[in-house]
Amino acid sequence: WTGRPGQLQPADPRPVPGVALVGAGPGDPDLITVRGRRLLGRADVVVVDRLAPQLLLDGLRPDVEIVDAAKIPHGRQLSQDAINALLVERGLAGRYVVRLKGGDPLVFGRGGEEADACLAAGLPVEIVPGVTSAIGVPGLAGVPVTHRGVTHEFVVVSGHVPPEHPDSLVDWPALGRLRGTLVLMMAVGNLAAITATLVRYGRSPDTPVAVVQEGATSHQRMVTGTLATIADRSVENGIGAPAVAVVGNVVNALAMVSRQERTH
Amino acid sequence: WTGRPGQLQPADPRPVPGVALVGAGPGDPDLITVRGRRLLGRADVVVVDRLAPQLLLDGLRPDVEIVDAAKIPHGRQLSQDAINALLVERGLAGRYVVRLKGGDPLVFGRGGEEADACLAAGLPVEIVPGVTSAIGVPGLAGVPVTHRGVTHEFVVVSGHVPPEHPDSLVDWPALGRLRGTLVLMMAVGNLAAITATLVRYGRSPDTPVAVVQEGATSHQRMVTGTLATIADRSVENGIGAPAVAVVGNVVNALAMVSRQERTH
Repeated sequence: WTGRPGQLQPADPRPVPGVALVGAGPGDPDLITVRGRRLLGRADVVVVDRLAPQLLLDGLRPDVEIVDAAKIPHGRQLSQDAINALLVERGLAGRYVVRLKGGDPLVFGRGGEEADACLAAGLPVEIVPGVTSAIGVPGLAGVPVTHRGVTHEFVVVSGHVPPEHPDSLVDWPALGRLRGTLVLMMAVGNLAAITATLVRYGRSPDTPVAVVQEGATSHQRMVTGTLATIADRSVENGIGAPAVAVVGNVVNALAMVSRQERTH
Repeated sequence: WTGRPGQLQPADPRPVPGVALVGAGPGDPDLITVRGRRLLGRADVVVVDRLAPQLLLDGLRPDVEIVDAAKIPHGRQLSQDAINALLVERGLAGRYVVRLKGGDPLVFGRGGEEADACLAAGLPVEIVPGVTSAIGVPGLAGVPVTHRGVTHEFVVVSGHVPPEHPDSLVDWPALGRLRGTLVLMMAVGNLAAITATLVRYGRSPDTPVAVVQEGATSHQRMVTGTLATIADRSVENGIGAPAVAVVGNVVNALAMVSRQERTH
């Protein structure tokens, strides 16, 4: 097997074009990769996420089947099993399928499950990484996730499940001890519980926090505060999903950015 | 200020085109973003890193000044101060400067320092995120950094400074307690010390580990093992920099990939 990196061969491959899992990047349609954009242009079927930039679909051939996984059928989202089944069904029918996902396909996007379902069905799978919102959204707002002399580590965590919930797979006690950068994804709804948990497990309440809503789009808004204040500040400013929160001293690393850019 | 996200305004802006910090992605020249590629085509000066794909320079106009920050002067690398000074000098001279960096410009790339130096000199700075090798390299080798039911967190750490070193900014005790995915960058030289440290602080010696050398290129090689065995296995297989190591159960998440792809 001598394919390019990202081209995963199933144990029992079928003679079909296969499925590409393409990361669309953090929101700006120009932040997809050159390869992702090219494969999109070859697709017979595009199965698209809510968080992928819709502008990327504008240039597709008129005969391309576009499936919005967030909208059908009857206004409800497709279940993950239904998405997996759709990718496999279209792929086995010999159509080249691009699964377009916001950010990177393997970061909290359930792309691994989709890849596994396709490989199990004998479909070749290509992984095309994307700029993850976890790094791209803070960066575009002037917050580097690492900075020399400040931190040599960053953690990316899903805040979708509350800290006390039995389904939580996040090591909050260990994260409370960490002094590096912490990036919280899908955390707006649980921000008060998460910040309180981090403080309870040892992180200073004075730790700077920035929350960026709709990053990498023209609607981008940023609110800053500390672990003690950010939950209230976010509510006061009407911050809602999608948003990325960054915890750590990197929030103030780029001292030279104009305040106007940093605080609205 | 109503620029696009990523366009950072200095407190005291000069009327010059400015500097773009562009992430080149993990190695494959097609994994740069569409915007990064476009800005590269507009550059008067390109200051390039060792880890940025050299093929990206092939299509540039003949009058573009290309500075290899890893090679000059006289075969030695430019110091960070010298790079900062070069960006500022060329930028203030009215030339549009693209600083092309491997991966993402703000992940262990000292891009934050470069941005700060430019902003302090009054130069507008645009951040163009890239696919970080921390996520892209494992993904292209079939290892998702997150996977449902396995982990909802991943940590990215620089392994450049040994764990016991006084300059280390990494919380190894906290990382030893973490059960999620741990991605080690620049860690090949310190792999034995790092894996021993993680086990000492509580991580199971049976935790799966994959090391990917020269990921996202045609030279990609992957070696797998556990925290107990990977340092020896890497030496036996002659693994060298640049390499990315992934620690955690995600290493075995994509069960359906053919063995041939996963183990050589």
